[in-house]
Amino acid sequence: MRLRNKPWAREKIETHPQYVVANPAEHKGKWEEVFGNDNPIYIEVGTGKGQFVTGMAKAHPDINFIGIELYESVIVSALDRLIEAELPNLKLLNVDAKNLADYFAKGDVDRVYLNFSDPWPKARHEKRRLTYKTFLKLYEDIMPEDGEIHFKTDNQGLFEYSLKSFSDYGLLLTYVSLDLHKSDFEGNIMTEYEEKFSAKGQRIYRSEVKYR
Amino acid sequence: MRLRNKPWAREKIETHPQYVVANPAEHKGKWEEVFGNDNPIYIEVGTGKGQFVTGMAKAHPDINFIGIELYESVIVSALDRLIEAELPNLKLLNVDAKNLADYFAKGDVDRVYLNFSDPWPKARHEKRRLTYKTFLKLYEDIMPEDGEIHFKTDNQGLFEYSLKSFSDYGLLLTYVSLDLHKSDFEGNIMTEYEEKFSAKGQRIYRSEVKYR
Ligand SMILES: C[S@@+](CC[C@H](N)C(=O)[O-])C[C@H]1O[C@@H](n2cnc3c(N)ncnc32)[C@H](O)[C@@H]1O
Ligand SMILES: C[S@@+](CC[C@H](N)C(=O)[O-])C[C@H]1O[C@@H](n2cnc3c(N)ncnc32)[C@H](O)[C@@H]1O
Repeated sequence: MRLRNKPWAREKIETHPQYVVANPAEHKGKWEEVFGNDNPIYIEVGTGKGQFVTGMAKAHPDINFIGIELYESVIVSALDRLIEAELPNLKLLNVDAKNLADYFAKGDVDRVYLNFSDPWPKARHEKRRLTYKTFLKLYEDIMPEDGEIHFKTDNQGLFEYSLKSFSDYGLLLTYVSLDLHKSDFEGNIMTEYEEKFSAKGQRIYRSEVKYR
Repeated sequence: MRLRNKPWAREKIETHPQYVVANPAEHKGKWEEVFGNDNPIYIEVGTGKGQFVTGMAKAHPDINFIGIELYESVIVSALDRLIEAELPNLKLLNVDAKNLADYFAKGDVDRVYLNFSDPWPKARHEKRRLTYKTFLKLYEDIMPEDGEIHFKTDNQGLFEYSLKSFSDYGLLLTYVSLDLHKSDFEGNIMTEYEEKFSAKGQRIYRSEVKYR
């Protein structure tokens, strides 16, 4: 993701604490206080400009969504969408996914979405991939026993790697499509990257796995 | 596979018992007697006309191969190749894979190859797919603890199904390619179906799984 310098981004984020949660560690184990209800919580890790998580929150008002994005300059676009849509069941976190356990207790999160995660194709960067075993452990530590990861990407190498990583971790593969847009999967919400790559004729790969 | 009536097929098979093993159940637990050595044994289930298994036997003289094919009218083509190539490390079995445990004891077989297996796309035919759980149990019962299945196909639906079936059975996915012919996999031997479908521009999918 190309990062432009946006000095006003931090200020904009700080002036919307009802959308971009300011001190997420304070809500660990009690996110129902943030949403005002105890509906299930689904998070997207690496939310980018927020098209997916905003679309999901609109389509599923009985689920609470949290979009997690590292970069201020990127998350402001998701914030713009959220200000526009005024969704009570969507929050954003401007944090690094590697610290998820600081913000969520075991069982706080019911599902993790990973969409078009950075592929880090070089072997020496394997540990940075969001489907590397240390991340699978992180997600496990914040979900209930049967928590799920829903993952899509256009990147063949990352998808192949992730299928092996899931298997090695002992996760159960409950869904897989090797060409999502030609499948009968219903209710797909496109991400920004998905629109871009599928327009170029790239296949989209999608999987669902479950802890067991 | 279209089956032509070949009344001479049975006779031809019976006159070559050194190639098409006549009473395989008699060799259960002692296949080293058939090959005259105790090299590892790799079988291909649904060998068709035998291009793959013949090519593998030529390329790997220190491995014993067995091609298993249900139809007389098909296996005769594999027999013709074998008569021509005179390979001491290749045998054929004209039997139904569902009876594998009648012919092989636990540990007799070190690896199972499945190539372009019939897809049986209808849900009600799931049990006939060679990657259905009852077949995975059969292969487990004739291999050592860490036995492997190597599987390739052009059929997207069968490959997706098989990845889920492997995962459900608890198999470890150690290799996967979603486009074999564009991958860096070395030593690939093409099957008849692989030549036909890849010439049409179809992708070839390939996986390796291991019991654990
Ligand atoms: C390739 S983009 C995809 C964005 C969006 N999910 C889509 O499909 O259009 C990956 C995003 O993940 C974010 N990201 C990568 N690693 C992250 C981490 N450790 N924590 C939070 N966000 C991360 C990046 O900043 C980037 O915005
Ligand atoms: C689609 S063909 C593929 C042939 C070859 N492996 C290739 O890739 O070119 C599948 C073959 O498996 C054989 N077959 C299917 N079920 C079988 C079974 N239960 N036992 C033995 N052979 C079987 C069929 O007769 C057929 O020849």
